Amino acid sequence: MSSRRNLADVARVIKQHQSFLLTAHVRPDGDAIGSLLALYWALRGLGKRATMVLHDECPQAYRFLPGWAAILSPDDADDEWRFDAAVVLDCEGLERTGAVADLLANIRPIIDIDHHAGRKAFGDVHATYEDAAATAELIYELLGHLAAPLTADIATCLLAGLMFDTGSFRYANTTARALRTAAALVEAGARADRVASALFAEEPFPKVVLRGIALSRARLAAGGRICGSYLQRADFAATGALDEHAEGIVEELRGVGGVLVGILSRELPTGEAKLSFRSHGVPDVSQIAAQFGGGGHREAAGSCFAGSAEEALDAAMAAVERALAEAEERQAK
Amino acid sequence: MSSRRNLADVARVIKQHQSFLLTAHVRPDGDAIGSLLALYWALRGLGKRATMVLHDECPQAYRFLPGWAAILSPDDADDEWRFDAAVVLDCEGLERTGAVADLLANIRPIIDIDHHAGRKAFGDVHATYEDAAATAELIYELLGHLAAPLTADIATCLLAGLMFDTGSFRYANTTARALRTAAALVEAGARADRVASALFAEEPFPKVVLRGIALSRARLAAGGRICGSYLQRADFAATGALDEHAEGIVEELRGVGGVLVGILSRELPTGEAKLSFRSHGVPDVSQIAAQFGGGGHREAAGSCFAGSAEEALDAAMAAVERALAEAEERQAK
Repeated sequence: MSSRRNLADVARVIKQHQSFLLTAHVRPDGDAIGSLLALYWALRGLGKRATMVLHDECPQAYRFLPGWAAILSPDDADDEWRFDAAVVLDCEGLERTGAVADLLANIRPIIDIDHHAGRKAFGDVHATYEDAAATAELIYELLGHLAAPLTADIATCLLAGLMFDTGSFRYANTTARALRTAAALVEAGARADRVASALFAEEPFPKVVLRGIALSRARLAAGGRICGSYLQRADFAATGALDEHAEGIVEELRGVGGVLVGILSRELPTGEAKLSFRSHGVPDVSQIAAQFGGGGHREAAGSCFAGSAEEALDAAMAAVERALAEAEERQAK
Repeated sequence: MSSRRNLADVARVIKQHQSFLLTAHVRPDGDAIGSLLALYWALRGLGKRATMVLHDECPQAYRFLPGWAAILSPDDADDEWRFDAAVVLDCEGLERTGAVADLLANIRPIIDIDHHAGRKAFGDVHATYEDAAATAELIYELLGHLAAPLTADIATCLLAGLMFDTGSFRYANTTARALRTAAALVEAGARADRVASALFAEEPFPKVVLRGIALSRARLAAGGRICGSYLQRADFAATGALDEHAEGIVEELRGVGGVLVGILSRELPTGEAKLSFRSHGVPDVSQIAAQFGGGGHREAAGSCFAGSAEEALDAAMAAVERALAEAEERQAK
């Protein structure tokens, strides 16, 4: 196991300083928040001063983590703020900190800790390792170099980061080292089931029932390569579900074995239908959405449709079926 | 870390014998199949003869595991079959092996390896540890006692068992020991992402629609602390779903925000109902299942019910509601 020596350099620099600004990227995810909070508690445990500042608010899903309420906004900055050093976590570049970058312009040294691939190092001290499953894995190792106690709170924050970035140990970045780190965190008092249920599992009841309605109506086309379903306003009314509760359904339709394109059509409060398309990259669903005046990416696209949700679904399934047939013809030539 | 000494006894008995019948429970899950195949390969690697026999066919979802096609049915038994010993995996009782029990009647010694809680040991040699996350975790440790090489194939089978029974490390049985075992398996060549995508990601269409039907019928009780649903044979018939396709639904019911206990009641081909209970550890659902003549773990338990699926659900929801009320009364005192 490589020793990631730059973390020893980072630890040395941290020991030499007293007050820190800690930040991470805009639209923070579980690894950004978990790593940030863990380092915050560890520095405080070492008798240092630490101030967390993020461009965005802490998302609701991570508010089970101890310390989230202490995260400040760049708007909270005042003239009294003085920092000996800054730590930038889980960012591919300084600009990923959003408005926090303005604050960082006046702080030296800047310490850069990250695990993203193909990035340029920035700042004055770097510990960037592509083979780390998450920034949280690096923070865990940094705490060892700092001889900082691994409290149950810190372990919980780090496990949240690690479980988020590995999709609960389902993604290809799930290395033996990541699993061993997780074991140490559980041993220190983190509960994988609690972290998972906060990060992944807990869903509002109306959302679950709405998903049930959509999945129960799913149908296949094009020999099982297209899976589509629809939702009407009556379904939202019957379940008390909000529009945002339809999130994730179209990914489940795409997740059916053999399916290339998942489609969800749902009636909007305006009476129009909203079409969502998902693929695994082939076919390019942004081109199909474009036929309906919409757009997006290869894997995820959407558009509106002047008609009922069922009519929209029929039209969308027919369009995808044509696109698949045309692609086959091109291949046959 | 306790050493689970009975595994050393099991290893000793295995070393003394040459030909083995290996089996696991009816309606085999990922842990049953993964543990069975891993032990099969390990015994063969040690130059022993091993024959796998299961009451049911290997479910489609586990056919990515090496060796599944060698699993036989009790109908394949012939007069030539002679075994020095049998190993019964992941079974709370001998009767859980279904029709394989008839074959076991003529074999001694029987080795019992399992991790279910509140069970009675059976057979002649036992290694039953409730604190193991999965039977696969015990097989991993047994291989150490046998000095059997941990090939990538064996590691893959064991990781499948471990990931299945921990819900990819999201359930309360995700101990540090389970995570360390997983680390060792990944180090030996198992790929967590491949196991996860085979176990969890691609789902057959009938399974998705069946889940939809169950979720669309979900209802809450006890102020949102119980979430239950049911499935009838007609639902299986309408969707073409198999019994194994009901897997995972009860975990989704438990995953509803605020829910302490998820319950799924489904009609079996026999006309009886099968009740599945899931909690986050409190209340202990094995005690509730015991009221219906079943059993299991704190977090996961089940039982049969002589009545319709809806009647079973009503009775189960009422029993859980009583258990919650009694727990509150005890706390108030």
